Amino acid sequence: MSSSTALLTDQYELTMLASALRDGTAHRECTFEVFTRRLPHGRRYGVTGGIGRVLEAIENFHFGEAEIAQLADNEVVDDRTIEWLRDFRFSGQVDGYPEGELFFPGSPLLTVRGTFAEAVVLETLVLSILNHDSAIASAAARMVSAANGRRIIEMGSRRTHEESAVSSARAAYLAGFTATSNLEAGRRYGIPTAGTAAHAFTLLHDSERSAFESQVAALGTGTTLLVDTYDISNGIQLAVEVAGPDLGAVRIDSGDVGVLARQAREQLDDLGATGTRIVVSGDLDEYAIASLRAEPVDGYGVGTSLVTGSGAPTAEMVYKLVEVEDRPVAKRSSHKESRGGRKAAIRRYKKTGTAVEEVVFRPDSAAELGPHDRFLQIPLIRDGKRVEGLPTLEQDRQRLRHALVTLPWEGLKLSHGEQAIPTTFLQS
Amino acid sequence: MSSSTALLTDQYELTMLASALRDGTAHRECTFEVFTRRLPHGRRYGVTGGIGRVLEAIENFHFGEAEIAQLADNEVVDDRTIEWLRDFRFSGQVDGYPEGELFFPGSPLLTVRGTFAEAVVLETLVLSILNHDSAIASAAARMVSAANGRRIIEMGSRRTHEESAVSSARAAYLAGFTATSNLEAGRRYGIPTAGTAAHAFTLLHDSERSAFESQVAALGTGTTLLVDTYDISNGIQLAVEVAGPDLGAVRIDSGDVGVLARQAREQLDDLGATGTRIVVSGDLDEYAIASLRAEPVDGYGVGTSLVTGSGAPTAEMVYKLVEVEDRPVAKRSSHKESRGGRKAAIRRYKKTGTAVEEVVFRPDSAAELGPHDRFLQIPLIRDGKRVEGLPTLEQDRQRLRHALVTLPWEGLKLSHGEQAIPTTFLQS
Repeated sequence: MSSSTALLTDQYELTMLASALRDGTAHRECTFEVFTRRLPHGRRYGVTGGIGRVLEAIENFHFGEAEIAQLADNEVVDDRTIEWLRDFRFSGQVDGYPEGELFFPGSPLLTVRGTFAEAVVLETLVLSILNHDSAIASAAARMVSAANGRRIIEMGSRRTHEESAVSSARAAYLAGFTATSNLEAGRRYGIPTAGTAAHAFTLLHDSERSAFESQVAALGTGTTLLVDTYDISNGIQLAVEVAGPDLGAVRIDSGDVGVLARQAREQLDDLGATGTRIVVSGDLDEYAIASLRAEPVDGYGVGTSLVTGSGAPTAEMVYKLVEVEDRPVAKRSSHKESRGGRKAAIRRYKKTGTAVEEVVFRPDSAAELGPHDRFLQIPLIRDGKRVEGLPTLEQDRQRLRHALVTLPWEGLKLSHGEQAIPTTFLQS
Repeated sequence: MSSSTALLTDQYELTMLASALRDGTAHRECTFEVFTRRLPHGRRYGVTGGIGRVLEAIENFHFGEAEIAQLADNEVVDDRTIEWLRDFRFSGQVDGYPEGELFFPGSPLLTVRGTFAEAVVLETLVLSILNHDSAIASAAARMVSAANGRRIIEMGSRRTHEESAVSSARAAYLAGFTATSNLEAGRRYGIPTAGTAAHAFTLLHDSERSAFESQVAALGTGTTLLVDTYDISNGIQLAVEVAGPDLGAVRIDSGDVGVLARQAREQLDDLGATGTRIVVSGDLDEYAIASLRAEPVDGYGVGTSLVTGSGAPTAEMVYKLVEVEDRPVAKRSSHKESRGGRKAAIRRYKKTGTAVEEVVFRPDSAAELGPHDRFLQIPLIRDGKRVEGLPTLEQDRQRLRHALVTLPWEGLKLSHGEQAIPTTFLQS
């Protein structure tokens, strides 16, 4: 990662800045809001991901000599703007939904307050992070629901950009995945890593037996042997011969994994390997995972569908100017209209803990907080500094686990439908 | 970017390494091949992207003290493997399709030869880069075709991971996009950058007029004014009043852009601004671009659909062991079968220059090279070092531009269909 995140930005943020510095409007106090206009087709909820990465990116958002030189050499902006950027540190306020929170269209996910200048330059980077990480977290949460308590490992690094891979592993873990194959995610975020062998390892050896013997010698009998390089039934037989009945697991990566898992379970049990787990992988998505619920599968490996957001690779969030010096503003030429003015949000619950609705309102209006309701935004940055004691990734992971339990049961269905709870927009 | 790319890797690459070092097979000479089993649904060709990034990543693939410590502390691999990794530099051979080349299912896109140890550890990173960049380049090429010579600007940074954004800008430029909004792509790859203002800039000001006046004062009359914040017709009137008939361009970001472009052209011409260009943006993909071909549009801004690969966010390439010490190997349990053995490829052309077929064959077999045929792979790395004089990004850009012209006309159709030219697999 670049130590400075400042050039991960659309040029127009800086040309707007240049014009606004010139006419003085750059110093107007503004509020920008991040929200999404819709959920991906048929999805019932979204999950916030990337908030922690956003806070870190804002802290690292400053223009060093290298960045300044790039802008000056290419005459992207004028000298006045260069001078302003040289000293830039965000000094404003940020509030938002924590990570691992459910969201719906119109939820005020992040509220950035500061001068126009300091808030506008953050737009691209904030959206890049939230759109990516929330897309992955939202898809991942559905997969975790479908896995219904079974282990689920993220292994999609090879199917996405090498840095998206690291962030995808983080978002998947947030959403309840057990581990990741990605070593950099292990290093950067302390996420448990997993992985043993691919088909290449078997093909490298003179026989499947010698490959299994080698792996067991190196990694122990608790390892996972990949049994579908040649014939699965032979592979399983051989695996137990080599490792004994204490073999940790077998992995099946191809074919009709439901049928194969049943056959594998029977065969393993017959061989006395009753404790040997069965892990399946290979083009699984939330629907495939759900369809395996009745099969004797102990764990899932999920790749492509996770890192591509299972059909929705971006959360399509936008970062919109909603207030200028306490005056609500909004574009109004088309269907892309926004609601002007800063918003707050609460989620209402029944006494039983089931979520009932989300209420979005102007902070100065009169939304009554019931005994079981709660505010959804928390303070994230104050005067440019991260608020102390923000939730950890583990806490955010627990938050989501809990939040999903609060949804009405139909909100967790994988099929296309309405959003899990309705959103009410109160007019001020 | 991390200076070391070595942990952008799946754990199992290293556990396989550990087992293979222990049993001695790690030193067997191997060939791995990158190919894709299919094109995205209905696509007629793919475009290689990311080869240059792969070569750089391989050069930076070494384990520094920080990476070694991470592996040791977490007991990912044993001491022997740690010692081996400490000295690791790839010392093998890489051949492949250059960037900006067309490809089809089964094309041997990259061939990595070396010991099992040194070739297997590159798998994840090589695939991450190629799968991402080729997905973007493939989608981008269709958009450039659809734009039919008109300017097309990449502006999707906010809808994808912040580092994917930079690589997406690169892949789009490779495929013929004119410029990018992403400043880091400008710095890292020398790609032209573009951008002027968003709706927020207009909303910030007390009136649309004062926003336009400010922008023109700062950026000159050659700038692009965004005219759809309030009423488009008023916006255009005002834009020409403020900037005069020499206004560079107006941008329309919402609504039925075809109809609006026609009205805008008429209005601009009536106002004497006959040279003012019309740029459209807002959820454009290759189909929307094509549908605007008859409209007076001078340029396109493309965001989400570009960075998400327009429905195909990954190229689904795989990295398969195909030869161990000159012995062809292949998995054979299922439909995921691969063709064993190292492959070469030529593309055959008519005398007129039209491509006819791609031929994939074992290098020791007898594929005859006709007078208009050419080999598709070029040497990329020799004994661990990048071959000198490899094509530049600009040259690769020209390569693609030329390659698309050689396709039979139906190969460029946007509609779903067969691959543009057939691939023949010769048996050795």
